[in-house]
Amino acid sequence: MSQEQKSGLSRRALLGATAGGAAIAGAFGGRLALTGGAVGGLTLATTGAALAAGEGFNVAPGQLDTHYGFWSSGQTGEMRILGIPSMRELMRVPVFNRCSATGWGSTNESLRIHQRTMTEKTKKQLAANGKKIHDNGDLHHVHMSFTDGKYDGKYLFMNDKANTRVARVRCDVMKTDAILEIPNAKAIHGMRPQKAPNTKYIFCNGEDEAPLVNDGSTMTDVSTYVNIFTAVDAEAMLPAWQVMVSGNLDNCDADYEGKWAFSTSYNSEMGMTLADMTAAEADHVVVFNLAAIEAAIAAGEGQELNGVRVLDGRKDAKSQFTRYIPIPNNPHGCNMAPDKKHLCIGGKLSPTVTVLDVTRFDALFNDNADPMTTIVAQPELGLGPLHTAFDGRGFAYTSLFLDSQVVKWSIEDAIKAYAGEAVDPIKDKVDVQYQPGHLKTVMGETLDAENQWLVCLCKFSKDRFLNVGPLKPENDQLIDISGDKMVVVHDGPNFAEPHDAIAVAASKVNPVSAWNRQDKMWAETRAQAEADGVNLDDWQDMVIRDKDDPKKVRVYMTSQAPSFALETFTVKEGDEVTVIVTNLDDIDDLTHGFTMGNHGVAMEIGPLATSSVTFTAANAGVYWYYCQWFCHALHMEMRGRMFVEPSGA
Amino acid sequence: MSQEQKSGLSRRALLGATAGGAAIAGAFGGRLALTGGAVGGLTLATTGAALAAGEGFNVAPGQLDTHYGFWSSGQTGEMRILGIPSMRELMRVPVFNRCSATGWGSTNESLRIHQRTMTEKTKKQLAANGKKIHDNGDLHHVHMSFTDGKYDGKYLFMNDKANTRVARVRCDVMKTDAILEIPNAKAIHGMRPQKAPNTKYIFCNGEDEAPLVNDGSTMTDVSTYVNIFTAVDAEAMLPAWQVMVSGNLDNCDADYEGKWAFSTSYNSEMGMTLADMTAAEADHVVVFNLAAIEAAIAAGEGQELNGVRVLDGRKDAKSQFTRYIPIPNNPHGCNMAPDKKHLCIGGKLSPTVTVLDVTRFDALFNDNADPMTTIVAQPELGLGPLHTAFDGRGFAYTSLFLDSQVVKWSIEDAIKAYAGEAVDPIKDKVDVQYQPGHLKTVMGETLDAENQWLVCLCKFSKDRFLNVGPLKPENDQLIDISGDKMVVVHDGPNFAEPHDAIAVAASKVNPVSAWNRQDKMWAETRAQAEADGVNLDDWQDMVIRDKDDPKKVRVYMTSQAPSFALETFTVKEGDEVTVIVTNLDDIDDLTHGFTMGNHGVAMEIGPLATSSVTFTAANAGVYWYYCQWFCHALHMEMRGRMFVEPSGA
Repeated sequence: MSQEQKSGLSRRALLGATAGGAAIAGAFGGRLALTGGAVGGLTLATTGAALAAGEGFNVAPGQLDTHYGFWSSGQTGEMRILGIPSMRELMRVPVFNRCSATGWGSTNESLRIHQRTMTEKTKKQLAANGKKIHDNGDLHHVHMSFTDGKYDGKYLFMNDKANTRVARVRCDVMKTDAILEIPNAKAIHGMRPQKAPNTKYIFCNGEDEAPLVNDGSTMTDVSTYVNIFTAVDAEAMLPAWQVMVSGNLDNCDADYEGKWAFSTSYNSEMGMTLADMTAAEADHVVVFNLAAIEAAIAAGEGQELNGVRVLDGRKDAKSQFTRYIPIPNNPHGCNMAPDKKHLCIGGKLSPTVTVLDVTRFDALFNDNADPMTTIVAQPELGLGPLHTAFDGRGFAYTSLFLDSQVVKWSIEDAIKAYAGEAVDPIKDKVDVQYQPGHLKTVMGETLDAENQWLVCLCKFSKDRFLNVGPLKPENDQLIDISGDKMVVVHDGPNFAEPHDAIAVAASKVNPVSAWNRQDKMWAETRAQAEADGVNLDDWQDMVIRDKDDPKKVRVYMTSQAPSFALETFTVKEGDEVTVIVTNLDDIDDLTHGFTMGNHGVAMEIGPLATSSVTFTAANAGVYWYYCQWFCHALHMEMRGRMFVEPSGA
Repeated sequence: MSQEQKSGLSRRALLGATAGGAAIAGAFGGRLALTGGAVGGLTLATTGAALAAGEGFNVAPGQLDTHYGFWSSGQTGEMRILGIPSMRELMRVPVFNRCSATGWGSTNESLRIHQRTMTEKTKKQLAANGKKIHDNGDLHHVHMSFTDGKYDGKYLFMNDKANTRVARVRCDVMKTDAILEIPNAKAIHGMRPQKAPNTKYIFCNGEDEAPLVNDGSTMTDVSTYVNIFTAVDAEAMLPAWQVMVSGNLDNCDADYEGKWAFSTSYNSEMGMTLADMTAAEADHVVVFNLAAIEAAIAAGEGQELNGVRVLDGRKDAKSQFTRYIPIPNNPHGCNMAPDKKHLCIGGKLSPTVTVLDVTRFDALFNDNADPMTTIVAQPELGLGPLHTAFDGRGFAYTSLFLDSQVVKWSIEDAIKAYAGEAVDPIKDKVDVQYQPGHLKTVMGETLDAENQWLVCLCKFSKDRFLNVGPLKPENDQLIDISGDKMVVVHDGPNFAEPHDAIAVAASKVNPVSAWNRQDKMWAETRAQAEADGVNLDDWQDMVIRDKDDPKKVRVYMTSQAPSFALETFTVKEGDEVTVIVTNLDDIDDLTHGFTMGNHGVAMEIGPLATSSVTFTAANAGVYWYYCQWFCHALHMEMRGRMFVEPSGA
């Protein structure tokens, strides 16, 4: 966004606030109080003038957002890119889900990514159900790779709680390039990248407890159950090591020194029923000592299981790998402040957030210090505190699920209050609509934390939007935090179910607009083409029948608006047909598609990309294929015919 | 939306326009001209005060939209519900796509809807590829059912070009309740409901020509190819009748008297290559005579093919079923004006829109009148005219694909000009960003056409949003048409690929917030439960092994936040397990989910709904299932265990 655009954005919002805001407050009969008011000069987006309540906010046509929002989608299984502050969805990136538009989950390129680390148990499960990949994912968290505590714009990482996976999206092309099924662990939930010195590891919480060797030989004896914490090698996208822990694992985070990871546990009881899981008054945070773990792994300690070295960090093992800090009660959120020092744990069933001083963690391991000595504050903030976000001014923002509020508080004042001073750490509360979960400030999980916007992801929207039936959208609200009072300025409906999000300055992300022809995404496809004597980088209109397996046919064609290189091709009934399409259009925004009519086959081919899909042609006849991505005034005419000859012919 | 809310919305927009609009125009250095300006009183939403260019538009937090937008998603295969004028996506409704969140395409209920009318050829194709349903759909058009020329709020209908299907969504629950695979035809593209006296039929264009009996016995002789027009019985969701036509079929519409349907053809040549398809200077519109067709069907005329009676309406047959009106050149859009008289055909490769007077169609059939006598205007509007929308004041709005503009013109003045008067029908042009396809006024396809908003669906967005990689969003723009000049007031990014949309007044749509326990959606599930002695309307925690097939196990459980009725259940390795979950929570917005860990299984269970899913449990061990739809402060604890005993045990 240019400076000109920024100042345009600012003036409009500012002037709108002074004029329209007051009028609205009147029109609503005082129901929407004018709590914020406009302040400051003409550079809202950079210096932070507060918007007025009831005013709302608008990014005008032609203006760009200032920040990328990377959104999880929960059980939808995709990643979403939103613009902030407009809260518009700019792109969907299929990850664990099947995508009808792009062919994700159907193209050979995506199937290879899905199958690269698939476990034998999963292959057996899929085979028994006639499937090649799982039909769903549950993507809760999206986080960007770090260098020196700041976003480096290289990768995004995300979890799948449903099928125990972690995936990676490349920020240059905004496509998934790796999916890892994590062995031994169950139900990856909390997931965070190492922040410093860089993202060597992705830390992954196993939420569900189960027998370590889960083969049905023991099932009801819960004393055999373990929970697994996994560090994933972020470049190789393979497990680096695992640690068995006591209690289950919920959310996690990492410090700014590269020494620790930490995870909350809401079920330290290892209870198997709701009553048992909520029995204890206090659960805990587990602290992982990365240096001690790496030393043990290097020394070959622990056991090898399904290709991963597993250490025992359970309480009884009294190892140097872990420490357990008691936290009231079924704690959930786990958020490291950008002051490099304070870790905030949401109490969930306790009305408190517990603040831990991570600089005191050395003493836990070196001196066996009392874990309680690491607690430096425990402010009572309201009912159902879940997650905490941070700005660059020392304020923390905690979601209160049961109160349906966000509370703004001072970490410094909370510490003073815990030490006995008569100071109220709570600075403001604002109602949100309704039942907030995760909430995020812009750049707030990094050393670049900003002070303008807070996004609050509400689980219920109820009456905030037109009724669309029994299933309602969630409500992602944009809150202006630049002034003393927080102001909700946008209701953002969102499909199931954005658990979490991050907001990244536009300057940190630099996607390309056309693919590099040497991209590794189609390495296997390229190798096959070379074996077939086809130059994937040039014009292609070849139909090649496999010498060794004559039922296999490979159809190579280029696409250039408004036509495919092949206007017809012929195969036989029962052939296994692989169609490989290369888009020769090196034009911004000129994506082609390939759909084979009545065959359930469709895929995206981006500018200069190659994509392939394989299917068996079971019925003789004429079938049209067409470009399903609008590309040209003669797009409708961009089609050709597959002749499937009768098998007896 | 209450009157209070409406007037709040109005005042804010109006005041914002007067203050902020002028400031913005200055900030942008005059680049954004202040062409509109605010006019009128305090009731923008109803009476139509124009917004200023560069101003943008905002629906403030807590305010409701005034209209539902029902959006197609092209190759994404779903239907989307947007709010207008906020342009926010309120809900995704899976139709032809697989949905990771809701389990659409995996639940037994959705599979039954998919498979109800599946042809034998499709079953064979799927079986050869190890699939139960197609992995994609290409949903171009969404239209609502009509009574007396007005939306009746009952159903939405939509096409699948990829796999030759039509689907229906119920507006009470906003879920797909029927999918019809249409035999004989190929690639259903244009699709419209009958407008009057009510929606007895859905008219469906087959876009791709192919041999009528497409079995591979003839493929290269294109003289054997036909195109098929289908009328679908809208209640039964079965084909009523089909007509063979000359030339392919693109878009269609119907009149307000219930006498005609009409379809454009861009390939009257029946060309098989791009060069052949664009060879002729004129193609045509086909007019279908409903009374003549119904009489012939009642008389048993034509031939029966795959269960459907097919009439011959090709040119050479000289039947009373069809007439062909020449139109220059590869015409595309086909839009009936709410004046009940004028049909507008977009020329695409011709810069003209051809206006036909449908009251003259009787003479075509009764008197064999010259088809050219039905043409009453042919204004030259600009390059690449595709589709036309209408307001309630006699203006038409046509998208110009090549010019990237919308042109506003007067139908009455175009008729005068065609008759020789020196009048310019063009009233205004506005730039859009970029390459517009369909465009829609609010209620503009009905007798209730409104005058405030126009939605323009642009195929390319290029520089209008932050760059998100090679694949860019489309750009659905909101245009204020209330004043003399059109003003673009919102850029709306949208995922692949919203071809078409309709906008419906909120008062016309009345969804429920909880399911009716007697809903037909789970009739088969209910029948099975009764056979199992299970009361689906009461508490359920039963595990039943099938008497006849001991490998089949049915697990019935209710869900009530924060727990499932079953905390554990046990099956054997290799069992085919059907899990049937009934949500007992009769609470607005309280949807539950059921996900079986590491099994690729997840589904939605709305308030008071029942859903079921079947899978084979291939691996012995402990597997947690959990609720994936956030439901309660103890949602994370809403889980239970499936014990899979070793098959040898």
